[in-house]
Amino acid sequence: MENLSGNMLIAHGGGPTPVINGSLQGAIMEAKKHPEIKKIYAARYGAEGILANDLIDLTDLDDETIVNLSNTPSSTIGSCRRKLKEADYPAILDCFKKNDIRFFFYNGGNDSMDTCAKISKLAEDSGFPVNVIGIPKTIDNDLVATDHCPGFGSAARYAAISALELSFDANAMQGHIEVIEIMGRHAGWITAAASLFQDQMPSELLVYLPEVTFDKDKFVADVKKALAKGRGLVIAASEGICYANGKCVGDTGRVDGFGHVVLSGVGEELAKILNEETNVKTRSNKPGALGRCSITMQSSTDIEEAIEAGAFAVRSAVAGKTGYMAAISADRSNDYKYSMTLVPLSEVANEEKKFPAEWMNEEKNGVTAKFKEYCLPLIGNWKTRFSYLRGH
Amino acid sequence: MENLSGNMLIAHGGGPTPVINGSLQGAIMEAKKHPEIKKIYAARYGAEGILANDLIDLTDLDDETIVNLSNTPSSTIGSCRRKLKEADYPAILDCFKKNDIRFFFYNGGNDSMDTCAKISKLAEDSGFPVNVIGIPKTIDNDLVATDHCPGFGSAARYAAISALELSFDANAMQGHIEVIEIMGRHAGWITAAASLFQDQMPSELLVYLPEVTFDKDKFVADVKKALAKGRGLVIAASEGICYANGKCVGDTGRVDGFGHVVLSGVGEELAKILNEETNVKTRSNKPGALGRCSITMQSSTDIEEAIEAGAFAVRSAVAGKTGYMAAISADRSNDYKYSMTLVPLSEVANEEKKFPAEWMNEEKNGVTAKFKEYCLPLIGNWKTRFSYLRGH
Repeated sequence: MENLSGNMLIAHGGGPTPVINGSLQGAIMEAKKHPEIKKIYAARYGAEGILANDLIDLTDLDDETIVNLSNTPSSTIGSCRRKLKEADYPAILDCFKKNDIRFFFYNGGNDSMDTCAKISKLAEDSGFPVNVIGIPKTIDNDLVATDHCPGFGSAARYAAISALELSFDANAMQGHIEVIEIMGRHAGWITAAASLFQDQMPSELLVYLPEVTFDKDKFVADVKKALAKGRGLVIAASEGICYANGKCVGDTGRVDGFGHVVLSGVGEELAKILNEETNVKTRSNKPGALGRCSITMQSSTDIEEAIEAGAFAVRSAVAGKTGYMAAISADRSNDYKYSMTLVPLSEVANEEKKFPAEWMNEEKNGVTAKFKEYCLPLIGNWKTRFSYLRGH
Repeated sequence: MENLSGNMLIAHGGGPTPVINGSLQGAIMEAKKHPEIKKIYAARYGAEGILANDLIDLTDLDDETIVNLSNTPSSTIGSCRRKLKEADYPAILDCFKKNDIRFFFYNGGNDSMDTCAKISKLAEDSGFPVNVIGIPKTIDNDLVATDHCPGFGSAARYAAISALELSFDANAMQGHIEVIEIMGRHAGWITAAASLFQDQMPSELLVYLPEVTFDKDKFVADVKKALAKGRGLVIAASEGICYANGKCVGDTGRVDGFGHVVLSGVGEELAKILNEETNVKTRSNKPGALGRCSITMQSSTDIEEAIEAGAFAVRSAVAGKTGYMAAISADRSNDYKYSMTLVPLSEVANEEKKFPAEWMNEEKNGVTAKFKEYCLPLIGNWKTRFSYLRGH
C-alpha cells in the first residue's frame, strides 16, 4: 500500500458494454478531484494502445463531453481482444515509465483481471510502483466475487424487454413461434433475463442456457407442450448451447479470422428444427451486438453503478490500494441497495461464474423466482416507461 | 354517402406494428363521442374473427386500459394473414347483419385495402349499407396515396438507432464489420432509414435495398473500399435482396407452413461472403420482429399519427363517408406538420410504393439527403433522448 503521485492510465479490455463509457466517466470525474493525479490518459484500443504507447490525453476534456460519456454507446476510447502475455510486459512497463503512470485501471472481464493482477505484481517487482485497480465489465455477468457486473443489467434489460415485446407478437398472429438468440457463450445469465417479465407475457416462454446440454428430442417435446396452450411461444436460447456430443447448435461451420468457430446460427437452427417438427410458423431473431451496445436499453441502475465503479476504483488507487478489483455488494432485503468493495484480483482472475443450477426449473427450460428477485433490480426503472406493465 | 347509426367493427390485417394499438385507441376514443355508434366491436384475429363471428365487445372498456393501448406492443385484438376471398363474402355480410355493423374499419396494408374496397362495394350492393374506411398500417411504408404509413416511423427509428449503435460497436474494436438484416421483402424503406444518422456514425455504412439487384462482386468491392478507411463498417441489408438470377441472398432453402420461402439468412450469408473475402471480423445481427413490435423504439410522431388516423377514420365514417382510406399529408416546409385526408380505396388497393431510385446514391449502396429530409421527422423525438447526438 503506497500513496503515489503521478499520471493515471485507463484501458478497456474485451467487448464493449452499454455502460463501459460510464465507468470511464466516473473515473475521470473522480480523478479531477485528486491533486495526486496529474494527467489522465486513456489507452487507444485497450492493450494495443499500451503496447504501442498510443495514449489519449483526457486531462482537459470539457465537462459536457465528460457527462455525455455515459450516454454514448460502445467504447469511446476503443478496446481489443488481445490477451497480454509475459512477453508483452517489458513494453507495458516501458509505457508506464515513459508516461509516469502511477495509477492504472483496467476495465474488463476475466482475462483483463488476470492481466491486471500480473501488471500489479510486475510494477511491484520492478521497483516502479503503480497502484493497479480492476474495474469489472462484462455483459455476461460471469465474474466471481461480485454480486454482478456493470454491463449485465443493461444487457439483461435488453433481453427482458425484447422477449416481452416478442411475446406480444407471437401471441397476436393466432400463436406462432418467435426464437430469440441471445449472447453468452458459456454463461446463461443474459438469456435467463429473457424470463423477467414471464408472468406478464401473453405467450408461453422456453429458455435454453449453455449450462444445460441441449437435447433435440426434449426440446421438440417442450415446444409441442407449450404450443398446446394456444398462446404462441417465445424461445430464448443462448448462442452457446451445445449437444451432448460437444457440437454446438449454432455452429455454422464458419471460422473467423482468429480461428474461432463462429456460433451465429442458433436461432436459425432451432427454427429449422421446428419447421420440420411442427406446422407452426417460426421466426428466428438475433439482435446480436445490439444487446451489448444499446443506449436505448441502458439500465438506470447499471449506469449508476458503472459510474460509481470507475470513481471508486480511482479513489481506492489514490488511497494507496493496489491489486484489487472494485466489486459490487448488493442488499435486496428491502429496496435494492448496492455498495462498492475491494476484492483481491487473484480471487477473480480466470474464474467463471456460471448460472446456478438451483435457479433453473426442474425441466431445465426456465428459471426460478429466486433468479428474478436477484435480477429485476439490476435492469433499472421500467414501471414508468412501460405502462402496460403497471400491474406487475 | 349515408349517415348511418348502429354498431362499429374494427379489425387488424397482416403483421402488427408498434403503433397499431394506437389506431385502435384513437378509433375507440372517437367512437365514444358519437351517439350514432352504439357498440364498439373488434374482430379477434382479424379476418378470422369476422368469418367466425368471434367479436370482442370493447364498448365498456375502462379509460385507463384505452389510454394504455398505445403503449402496448403488437396487436392486442389479434391479427392474421388470411386474405379474404369472394367465397368469404357471404360470411362477412352475415357477421355484419347479425351484429348490426354499420361502420367497419380495417387497419392494414395493401391486401387489407383491397378487401376494404370490396367489402364497401358488397355492402352497398346488398342493400345493407355499411360505411367502410381503411386505416393504413405497415412498417414497410409501401402504401401509395399517403405520404407515409403509421408503423413506418417507429420501424425507421428502430433501424436508424440500431445502425447507429452498431456503428459505435464496429468502430470500437479497431474496426470490424457489423451486418444488420432489416425487414422489408420488396420495399427498402426501413433499411434506408438505417442511414438517418450516418453523418454521426464513427464507422462507414453501406445500405442494400431490395429494389436494387444484388451483385456479389460489387458488394465485396464496396466493402473493401469502406474498410480501407479504417473506421469499421455497418452493412444494412433488406431481408429481400436478390441476385440477378432471381435467387434471394437470404434464401435458406426452408419453406414455411404456408409454402413461402423463408428469407432469414441475409445477414449470415453476407457475413459468410465477407469471411471468405476479407480478413476482418464480421458479425451478423437480425433484430427481425423486434423492429416491428418494439414499444421502446416507438416514434412520438408515429404514435400521434396512428391515434389520429384511427380517430379520423371514425369521424369520416360517422359523417357518411365510405370506400376511403385515411391518408397522411405532410408539410415539411418549416417544422414538420401532418394532416389527415381521405383517398379512394381503389387508388390504394394492390399498389406498392417502392423506394424511389432517385433517393439512392450513384453507387446504389446508400441514400441521398432528400430521403433523410423525408424520413427524419417521422422517427419522432431523438434530440433529448440521445444526448450524444446533440450536435446533429
